[in-house]
Amino acid sequence: MALSSKDLLGIKGMASEEIRQILDTAATFKDVSERDIKKVPTLRGKTVINLFYEASTRTRTSFELAGKRLSADVINISTSTSSVVKGETLLDTARNIEAMKCDIIIVRHSCSGAPEYLSTRLKSSVINAGDGFHEHPTQALLDMFTIREMLGRLEGLTVVIVGDIAHSRVARSNVYGLTAMGAKVRVCGPPTMLPPGIDRIGAEVHYDTDEAVEGADVIMMLRLQLERQAAGLFPGVREYARLYGLNQVRVARAAKHVMVMHPGPMNRGVEISSEVADSTPVILEQVTNGVAVRMAVMFLLSGGSKTET
Amino acid sequence: MALSSKDLLGIKGMASEEIRQILDTAATFKDVSERDIKKVPTLRGKTVINLFYEASTRTRTSFELAGKRLSADVINISTSTSSVVKGETLLDTARNIEAMKCDIIIVRHSCSGAPEYLSTRLKSSVINAGDGFHEHPTQALLDMFTIREMLGRLEGLTVVIVGDIAHSRVARSNVYGLTAMGAKVRVCGPPTMLPPGIDRIGAEVHYDTDEAVEGADVIMMLRLQLERQAAGLFPGVREYARLYGLNQVRVARAAKHVMVMHPGPMNRGVEISSEVADSTPVILEQVTNGVAVRMAVMFLLSGGSKTET
Amino acid sequence: MALSSKDLLGIKGMASEEIRQILDTAATFKDVSERDIKKVPTLRGKTVINLFYEASTRTRTSFELAGKRLSADVINISTSTSSVVKGETLLDTARNIEAMKCDIIIVRHSCSGAPEYLSTRLKSSVINAGDGFHEHPTQALLDMFTIREMLGRLEGLTVVIVGDIAHSRVARSNVYGLTAMGAKVRVCGPPTMLPPGIDRIGAEVHYDTDEAVEGADVIMMLRLQLERQAAGLFPGVREYARLYGLNQVRVARAAKHVMVMHPGPMNRGVEISSEVADSTPVILEQVTNGVAVRMAVMFLLSGGSKTET
Repeated sequence: MALSSKDLLGIKGMASEEIRQILDTAATFKDVSERDIKKVPTLRGKTVINLFYEASTRTRTSFELAGKRLSADVINISTSTSSVVKGETLLDTARNIEAMKCDIIIVRHSCSGAPEYLSTRLKSSVINAGDGFHEHPTQALLDMFTIREMLGRLEGLTVVIVGDIAHSRVARSNVYGLTAMGAKVRVCGPPTMLPPGIDRIGAEVHYDTDEAVEGADVIMMLRLQLERQAAGLFPGVREYARLYGLNQVRVARAAKHVMVMHPGPMNRGVEISSEVADSTPVILEQVTNGVAVRMAVMFLLSGGSKTET
Repeated sequence: MALSSKDLLGIKGMASEEIRQILDTAATFKDVSERDIKKVPTLRGKTVINLFYEASTRTRTSFELAGKRLSADVINISTSTSSVVKGETLLDTARNIEAMKCDIIIVRHSCSGAPEYLSTRLKSSVINAGDGFHEHPTQALLDMFTIREMLGRLEGLTVVIVGDIAHSRVARSNVYGLTAMGAKVRVCGPPTMLPPGIDRIGAEVHYDTDEAVEGADVIMMLRLQLERQAAGLFPGVREYARLYGLNQVRVARAAKHVMVMHPGPMNRGVEISSEVADSTPVILEQVTNGVAVRMAVMFLLSGGSKTET
Repeated sequence: MALSSKDLLGIKGMASEEIRQILDTAATFKDVSERDIKKVPTLRGKTVINLFYEASTRTRTSFELAGKRLSADVINISTSTSSVVKGETLLDTARNIEAMKCDIIIVRHSCSGAPEYLSTRLKSSVINAGDGFHEHPTQALLDMFTIREMLGRLEGLTVVIVGDIAHSRVARSNVYGLTAMGAKVRVCGPPTMLPPGIDRIGAEVHYDTDEAVEGADVIMMLRLQLERQAAGLFPGVREYARLYGLNQVRVARAAKHVMVMHPGPMNRGVEISSEVADSTPVILEQVTNGVAVRMAVMFLLSGGSKTET
C-alpha cells in the first residue's frame, strides 16, 4: 500500500506501478476538493513543514492546502524569515525542524540534490518541491494525472515539451515519468536550451516547433525565464515567441484532440498566445489536480493504510 | 437568508435591509469571540484565501481570525511572495487560486476595481478588503455596527468624517452605507483632499473642522498618509493637526454623547490627540467588531443557512 | 495549578516550585509530540498570536507548533508586514491585537522590557520570546528541562556558560533559573562580553575557558554574533574560536558525563567545533524539548485545569 521509499525525491527510477498507485490514489482525493466540506481526517495530528528556499506561491499554496485538507498541521518556513540568513547549514536547519517531530518536510531549493541530501540524513519524509535544474516530481505527477484523466491513458501517447528544457526540472521529471508510463516524449527548443544527453533518457530531440508538434496528443509549454536572455541563451522575446511560442496555427498541426498544458505562471504572448491559453481548460485543471496529487503523495508517504477518503 | 450577491465588493448600491442583515448576523457572531471556546464549526472544510497585494497586518489578521473562528482553512498570500513578481496577470493568479477550489477570496489591491474585475470572472465569492481609493466595505460595516451598538441606531444621526476624504476608501464606503441607513454625513478636510462630487453621493461638505463637528453624534477621524505631503496635498503636519486634528476642545463642540472613531493605525498628535485617543473606548471596539462583521460576511456569502451560532 | 502570574516575562524572581511545575508539566506534554497523533484538544478555540518584531524562524516555529498541537488558532505577525512600519506605537498595535480577543500574545522584541510593558497594559497573557539583552525565559526553561531529563537533577550541578554573556538573554535567563534550582553557574567570555554585576546575580566569573570548564557537568555554548566584531568586542573570529570555542580537548577537561548544549543556530568552527556539535545528542533534544516546554507554559497560563494530556 505505502510507497517503497519514505521520500519523494524524483521520478527517475520510479516503477510504473508506483506512479500508477499515486495517480489512482490522487483520483480518490480529487473528490475531496469537490465536496462541500473539503476535509478528511487522514493526517490529523501530523506535522507538515513547507521549507521553501525559493519563493513559489503556487506550489507552496498547493502543498499547504493539500496538507490542511488532510487535517495536518502545516507550518510555512521561507528563506526570507529563515535562519539561513544567520549562516546555519541546510542540514542543521533541517535537523532542527525534524527535532520538533515533524512528519513530512517539503523542500524547495535552488540547489539540485538538496532534498536528497536531507532525505538520507532525516527520518522524516522529504518531498522534493523542485530542486535546481533537477526534478519537480509532484508537477510531473499532476501532469500525468491530468493527461490520463483527459485522454484516458498515457501509454502510446505522443507528448511534446517545448521550451527551455535544460533549465526545467518540470521537463526532466516529465521525461522520466512519461517514458516510464509508455508515452513517447519529444522535446523541442533552441539548441542552447536543450541539455546534452536528453535523448539518452528517452526523449526525441527537435529544434523545429512545427515539426515537433506534428500529430502530437499533448503539447506541454514551459515558462520562458526572461532572465535567460541576459545570459545569451535566446536572442529576444519576439524571436523566441515566433520560433517556439504556441499559437493556434501550430496547435492545428497536432492531433485533433490535442491537449495544451502549461505548469504556470504563463508569459502570455511569449511561450503561449492568449488565444491558446484561454481556449484550453487543461491549464487550470492541472492546478486543481496538483492539490489532489499532493494529498495522495502525503497520504502514501504517511503509511497510507487508513483509507478515510 | 443569504446575500443577494455572491460577493461583497462595496457598499454602494447595497439595500439597507441587506446592510441590516449583515449587522444583525454580526451581533450573533460577536458572542463567539467572547466565549471561552472561540470557535464554531460553520465553515469547516471551506477554504478562504487572503490575497493581499498591499500589506495590512490588521485587516489580514482580522479576516484570518474570522475565518479560523468559523473553522475554515485560511491561506495567506501576500505580494512579496506572490508570483505577481513573475509578471502573471491578476486574473491568471486568481484563476489559479480558484482552481485549487477555494470558496472565498479576500482581495486587497492598490487598483480600484480589482476585486470587482475578479468577481465577474470567478465562481468563488470575492470580498473586497480595500481597493485603491474606491471602497473598503467591511470597514464601513464594522463602523456602522459599532455606531448602532453604542448609540442604538443609525437613522437620524449626524456623522462627521474628517481627513483625506479623496484618498479614503473607508470614507467612501461609509458615506454610502451611512446615508443608506438614514444617517446624515458631513465630510471635512483641506480642499485638496475633498473629492469633487462627494456632495452628490449624499455628503455635506465642510472645510472648517470646528463647524463640521458642531453637534455631531459621531466623529470619524481618518489616518493622514504622511506621504501625501510630498505630493503637496497639505502644507505640513503641524498645520494639518491644528486645522483638522481632533483634540478635546473640538470634541466639546459635538453632542455630549459623541463617539470618536478611527479606523487605525492612528498617528497620535496628527489627526488625533493622545488624550482623545485614550479617552474613547470606541476605537478598540471597532477592532473587536471587525472580526464579528467579517465572520458574518463570510457566513452569509457561504450560504448562511446553517445557524450554528 | 495555574501559574502565579498571567504572564511569563522572565525567570528572574520565579520561585523554584513554579519552575519545577512548568518542567513537570512539560514532561507530560513531551509525550504528545512522540505520538502518532500529535495533538490534544487542550486549547481548542483559544487564539495565540506570535508577535515577532525580530525574525526568528526557530522560536516562532516552536511556539507555532506548540500552539497548534494544543489545538489553538495561531496567527503569525512579523514586523516586515506589520503596521509598525506605519509608525503605530507598540502599545496601540498590542491593544489592537488584544481587541481581536486573543488569549496569549507571544512577543519577541529588540527592546528589553517590551513584553513587560505590554503585560501590564493588556489582559491577555504575554509570553516573552526574547527581549533585547534581557530575558528569554522559555529557552532557559527548555535548557533546564533538558539538563534535568539527561542528568536527573539540577541541584548541585556545575553549569558553565561560555560566550557573549553581556548580549545574551539566554545566558541571563539561565543564570536566574539555574541558581534558583540550586545549580552552580560559571560564566566565561572575553572581558568585553561579560556584563558588570553578573557575579551579583549568582554567577562565578571566568576569563579562561580551560579553567571554566574544569569538572563541569554541563557546558552551554552561546552563539557568537559575528556583527559584534565591527563593534570592537572581539578581535577576530579565529582568535575567538581559539580562546572561547569548544573543541574536544576542552570537553575532556569537564566531567566525564558532561553534556554540551547550544541554543542554536550554531556557528560551526567558531564557538563550537563540528566534532563536538555532531557528537552531542543534546542540542537537538533541546529543540524537541522546546516544543514541550512551550506547550506547558501556554497550558499553565491558560488556566491549566483541564488535564487532557
